[in-house]
Amino acid sequence: MPELRKDPITRRWVIIATERAARPTDFPQQETTPNHSASCPFCEGQEAKTPPEIAAVRRPGTLANSPGWEVRVVPNKFPALRIEGSTAATIDGIFETMGGVGAHEVIIETPHHALHPATMTPAQLASAIWMYRERYRDLDRDERFKYLLLFRNHGRSAGASLSHPHTQLIALPIVPKRATEELEGAQAYFAREGRCVYCDLLGQEAATQTRVVWENGEFVAFAPFAAWCPFECWLMPKRHEAAFGSLTEAQIPALAEAMHDTLGRLYHCLSNPPYNFIIHTAPYDAKVAHFYHWHIEIIPRLSQVAGFEWGSGFYINTVPPEDAARYLREVIFPAPGHPARAG
Amino acid sequence: MPELRKDPITRRWVIIATERAARPTDFPQQETTPNHSASCPFCEGQEAKTPPEIAAVRRPGTLANSPGWEVRVVPNKFPALRIEGSTAATIDGIFETMGGVGAHEVIIETPHHALHPATMTPAQLASAIWMYRERYRDLDRDERFKYLLLFRNHGRSAGASLSHPHTQLIALPIVPKRATEELEGAQAYFAREGRCVYCDLLGQEAATQTRVVWENGEFVAFAPFAAWCPFECWLMPKRHEAAFGSLTEAQIPALAEAMHDTLGRLYHCLSNPPYNFIIHTAPYDAKVAHFYHWHIEIIPRLSQVAGFEWGSGFYINTVPPEDAARYLREVIFPAPGHPARAG
Repeated sequence: MPELRKDPITRRWVIIATERAARPTDFPQQETTPNHSASCPFCEGQEAKTPPEIAAVRRPGTLANSPGWEVRVVPNKFPALRIEGSTAATIDGIFETMGGVGAHEVIIETPHHALHPATMTPAQLASAIWMYRERYRDLDRDERFKYLLLFRNHGRSAGASLSHPHTQLIALPIVPKRATEELEGAQAYFAREGRCVYCDLLGQEAATQTRVVWENGEFVAFAPFAAWCPFECWLMPKRHEAAFGSLTEAQIPALAEAMHDTLGRLYHCLSNPPYNFIIHTAPYDAKVAHFYHWHIEIIPRLSQVAGFEWGSGFYINTVPPEDAARYLREVIFPAPGHPARAG
Repeated sequence: MPELRKDPITRRWVIIATERAARPTDFPQQETTPNHSASCPFCEGQEAKTPPEIAAVRRPGTLANSPGWEVRVVPNKFPALRIEGSTAATIDGIFETMGGVGAHEVIIETPHHALHPATMTPAQLASAIWMYRERYRDLDRDERFKYLLLFRNHGRSAGASLSHPHTQLIALPIVPKRATEELEGAQAYFAREGRCVYCDLLGQEAATQTRVVWENGEFVAFAPFAAWCPFECWLMPKRHEAAFGSLTEAQIPALAEAMHDTLGRLYHCLSNPPYNFIIHTAPYDAKVAHFYHWHIEIIPRLSQVAGFEWGSGFYINTVPPEDAARYLREVIFPAPGHPARAG
C-alpha cells in the first residue's frame, strides 16, 4: 500500500511508493560531461575569461586574476540580478514589480577541472566552505538583500552549464517561497511546542536511526521522512543555529567531512548522479533565530517527474527514505585510484 | 534591468529576465518519440493490454474492452494510489502518515496513436473534455477524496512514458500544496477586496491586452504576469466558477476550441514542445465557491533549470510573458497537410 507522508515543517504531503520501490541500479547512469579544460573559464590559467575576481584563497605573492589560487570567487558573467539599483516596488492594479537588484557570484571550488566534492580532499572542501561563509557574511551586510541563496548544480540535467566544480551565491531582495514556507512552519511549531522543530526532528531521527546515513560530532546526514524525491538527503548541524553565517571555525572541517562523505555516498551509490544542493538558511532577520535551524538539502535529479509535480505541488517518491538511507549506509568507498562502482 | 514580479494570487516572486530574453528558436527542437503503435496499449485493438475500462465513448453496438471507441478510460496500470482502504492518519512523534487511498485513471483521448490536441479536430477534443468532466463528477462523489488532479504530460521530458494522447486523473485524500497556496491567496484577496482575484486579473488582462494570446466567448488564453517559465499559458473561463465539474454543455465546445488553439500555437511556435497541463480546480468543499476560479495552467518544459528552482521556490524566467504572448499571437497555423514550422 502506498503511503502519504506529511513534511513536519512545511506540511507538504508526498506519496511514498512502498510497494514497487526502485533500487539504485534502476536509475540511468549519469552521462559524463567533460567540458574540455582548455576552453573552461574556471580552470587555472584562464582567469582572463571571467569577470575580475571578488575574492580568492591564494598562494602568497600571487596576483589577483592570475594563477596560484585554491578557491576563487567571480561575479556570474550572466547574472540573474544586478548589483546597482533600487528595490522600490511599483504597483499596477493587482500586479507588483520590483527592480532586479541583487548579487550573483560564482565560487570556483578548486583549480582542478575534473574533481567533485566526492573526490576532493576534505581539506580542499574546507577551503571552499570557508569561502562560502566569507561571501555569505559579506553580502549579509548589504541591507537591500533579504535572503542569501547558496547552491550547487552538478550535471547537465541539474542545470549545470559548466562541469568545473563551482557553487553559486545569489543575494535576493525578497525571501523565496520555500524559505517562507519553512519559516512559517517552524514558527507555528515553536508557538505550539516551545521548541525548534528541526531540533525535535534530529532527536527523533537519532532515536530511530532508520533514516540516518552518517554523522560526526557536529553534523548528521539523513534521508528526510517525507522526502520529495529518491535519495534526497539533508545535512543538518546538531547545534541550533538559524543562519549559515554563524558556522564556526571548528565546524568548517566537520562540515567538509560531512559533505565529502554524503556527496561521496551518493556519487558511489548512484554512479555520479546529477544533483542540486541548497543551503537553507535564515533570512537577514534576527527575529527568527530561536525557531529556524539552517541545513543543507541535497536533491539528486534521477527522474523526469518533476514538471508535473512542480506545477501541482504534489510529489510521488519511488524510493522510501528508509531504503535510500540503507543503500547509502552500505556504500563501499573504492580504494583511491579505483573507479566508482558501475553496477 | 531584470525585474522581480509577484504572483498576485500565491505571492510567489519570480525573476523576469528582460535584457537577454530568449526567442522561440533558442529552445531545442522536441525529440520525436514515436512509440510503435503495434506495442502501444492505448491503440485500438490493444484493449486487452490495459486493465478493464471504466468508461468509454463508443459506437453503438460495440462491446466494452473491444474496438469501436472514441474516448476510453482505464485504471492506471501502475497507480500512485489504491482505491481500497482507509484514510485514517497515524502519528509517530512529529511524523504523520496516511494510507495511500485514491484513484488513478487514464483518459485515452483518441484511438489514433499519432495525434496531438493541436492536430485533433475540436470535435474529437470536445469528446475527451466531456469525458474529463464525467470522470471528475463521478470521483467527486466519493467523500474520501479531497482533491481531483487532472493533468496531461506530453513528451518524455515532461514525464510522459507513452506518447499516445492521454490525460490522467488522480483523486487525492489531501489537498496538494499548490492548491492550498492558491486557495489561501484567493481567500485573503476576497477578504480584503470583496472580489474574486481571478476575475480581477481577467479584467486587467482584458484592459491591457499585452499578455492575451487568444479568446472566444467563454475562455481567455494568456501568459500570466508572473510566469514561472518561458511560454507558460493559462486558460481561464470568463464566467466565475470554482470547480471544473461545473463546466456546462455549452462550454465544452468552447473549451475544446480554446485548447485546440492554445496548444496548437505552442505546438507550431515551439515545434511540438514537451509540456504539462494541469487543471486547477476547487477542492471538494463548497465553502470556496465565491473566491476560487478554476483554470488550466500549461507549462512548456523548455529548460532544465527546474531542479534548483524546485528546491528553493525561486524562479528565473528568460522569456517575459509579454514577449511570449506576442510570439504566440503571431503564430501562423500551417495549411492542413503541411508540417509544423521548423525555423
